[in-house]
Amino acid sequence: MSTVLITGGTGFLGRKLLGALLARGHIGDSDGKPVEFDRIRIADLREPDAPLPQDDRIVTSWGDFTATGVAETLIDSDTTHIVHLAAAVSGECERDFDLGMRVNLDGTRGLLEAARGLQAPPKFVFTSSVAVYGGDMPAVLNDTTAAAPQNSYGAQKVACEYLISDMSRRGLIDGRTARLPTVIVRPGKANAAASSFASAVIREPLQGDEYICPVSPETAIWVLSPRKVIDGLVRTLDLSNEDWGSSRTLKLPGITVTVQEMLDALARVAGSDVAARVSMQPDEFIQNIISGWPARFELARAPALGFKGDEGIDAIVEAFIQDELNGQVA
Amino acid sequence: MSTVLITGGTGFLGRKLLGALLARGHIGDSDGKPVEFDRIRIADLREPDAPLPQDDRIVTSWGDFTATGVAETLIDSDTTHIVHLAAAVSGECERDFDLGMRVNLDGTRGLLEAARGLQAPPKFVFTSSVAVYGGDMPAVLNDTTAAAPQNSYGAQKVACEYLISDMSRRGLIDGRTARLPTVIVRPGKANAAASSFASAVIREPLQGDEYICPVSPETAIWVLSPRKVIDGLVRTLDLSNEDWGSSRTLKLPGITVTVQEMLDALARVAGSDVAARVSMQPDEFIQNIISGWPARFELARAPALGFKGDEGIDAIVEAFIQDELNGQVA
Repeated sequence: MSTVLITGGTGFLGRKLLGALLARGHIGDSDGKPVEFDRIRIADLREPDAPLPQDDRIVTSWGDFTATGVAETLIDSDTTHIVHLAAAVSGECERDFDLGMRVNLDGTRGLLEAARGLQAPPKFVFTSSVAVYGGDMPAVLNDTTAAAPQNSYGAQKVACEYLISDMSRRGLIDGRTARLPTVIVRPGKANAAASSFASAVIREPLQGDEYICPVSPETAIWVLSPRKVIDGLVRTLDLSNEDWGSSRTLKLPGITVTVQEMLDALARVAGSDVAARVSMQPDEFIQNIISGWPARFELARAPALGFKGDEGIDAIVEAFIQDELNGQVA
Repeated sequence: MSTVLITGGTGFLGRKLLGALLARGHIGDSDGKPVEFDRIRIADLREPDAPLPQDDRIVTSWGDFTATGVAETLIDSDTTHIVHLAAAVSGECERDFDLGMRVNLDGTRGLLEAARGLQAPPKFVFTSSVAVYGGDMPAVLNDTTAAAPQNSYGAQKVACEYLISDMSRRGLIDGRTARLPTVIVRPGKANAAASSFASAVIREPLQGDEYICPVSPETAIWVLSPRKVIDGLVRTLDLSNEDWGSSRTLKLPGITVTVQEMLDALARVAGSDVAARVSMQPDEFIQNIISGWPARFELARAPALGFKGDEGIDAIVEAFIQDELNGQVA
């Protein structure tokens, strides 16, 4: 028997991962050999308004995994794979330090404690973020550049990364951390988050809306499409314990694009009239935040382990049109 | 009123720091301006056999700071500076994972929680270690090389480093982490710890004893003398909040020496008959551990902030003879 647990399983990435796993039906064991799973447990704060797919393999757990005793109820003796997506997001953690510490640090530790009680160390996939970088950085980051978060979310994530690596070294779990680039193109509405522009500058014009871009055309950002994030998470689950070796944290291979390149891609893929829906009006506050994020990486480990990024910004725009707009540009 | 708290204050470094602070009588405030302190609180598990110096400024707290409610008793409204030296050491943490997590992670967090309750954010000096490095490393490490501990002690230390940096960024504390090179020459007896040889290869022959060195002459190690560690910790306490800026973790500037260079220094300082008390008998197990430690660093930040390493291995040997052997070579 084999159960996959996905915390935060009703979110944007959780649902896509669920769909990908259900379609596939199997997942790598600790040696990387495909094994059929019996169940996927979707855990989240509450039952979502939009229903999950109808599938007998899905079981659900609604509630706060950070509350005493709850983490243990998410994991049973059949649990072989855990994908821990649930988190307080960066804006919440900046507003409320204690919330972030409770959910992102203590909550993750509670889940790790429950996981290490299993007879067979489960695969434990943790998602981290490019938000672990900041401050004084080299112009091009590589596999051994130190994290230096300038936000509490990133600090809590990186602290957990180190605990997961150590517990994996000790054989208590078989942990893997995937650090995600900025994920574009997310569906939904533009919001006040600084990273919001990176999806909105593509999404809004494709949906027929004007968009005022708050950063300059030469602003570069490190991105990965939802499709490649899911491919990357599945691969993160699939690989053998041995393949991961002593280093348990991996940057999923994003690509570097400038805002101008995004606009050029929009024009190529959807026409210059669509691209013309974007006007530029740099906002110093947002520009400063975005300019503090690392945009260029030279990664050896992810490609060596078979992880693939997007082919280019055109492919990212096309995938969004197919996956979220049913192929229709407004 | 100003009180300096030193946890682990009866240990080798704690006592030396206490002595240095008592002799000095003042310490930098958050702007780096010298202020006289009224008290130094020495906290440790129990009262030591060897008495502390007689000085009215010393107050003591004996007990386990990781026990519920104890951390709060170490900090009062006068506490302006905290030096957190208390820790479970690397060997203990490898043998007992839960002990290390409790003392080094939860214990430090408890102290941080108590510290953030103060009206004026106290300076909080945390000691970390070269043990945060391991695994795949560049040949020469620099200020932005990622920590990748291959031991639980290092993982717990680096997790705390990130929490301290974040709490400092938020203004909850004024935190500073000093990552220490291997400290030589420590007094006492050779023991089974892998790092033991680095002090023993100098100390034992100077004390008149034969020593069998378990690593090859070309083995390089990154070292700092106790004197320079104390100078570094005092400077870490002294500097202004502004001088530290956004990066709260600093490697104290060690020097790289090979075992052969240690032996040559012994011969120069104490004579070739003393150096001849060392014989070489490499032990594969210890050699492998030591060879996995980083030995070469190119640091810009520590010198820029005025931190100084040892002048050379001769000075380290001479300082040991003066400080621990009363100037007498056996």
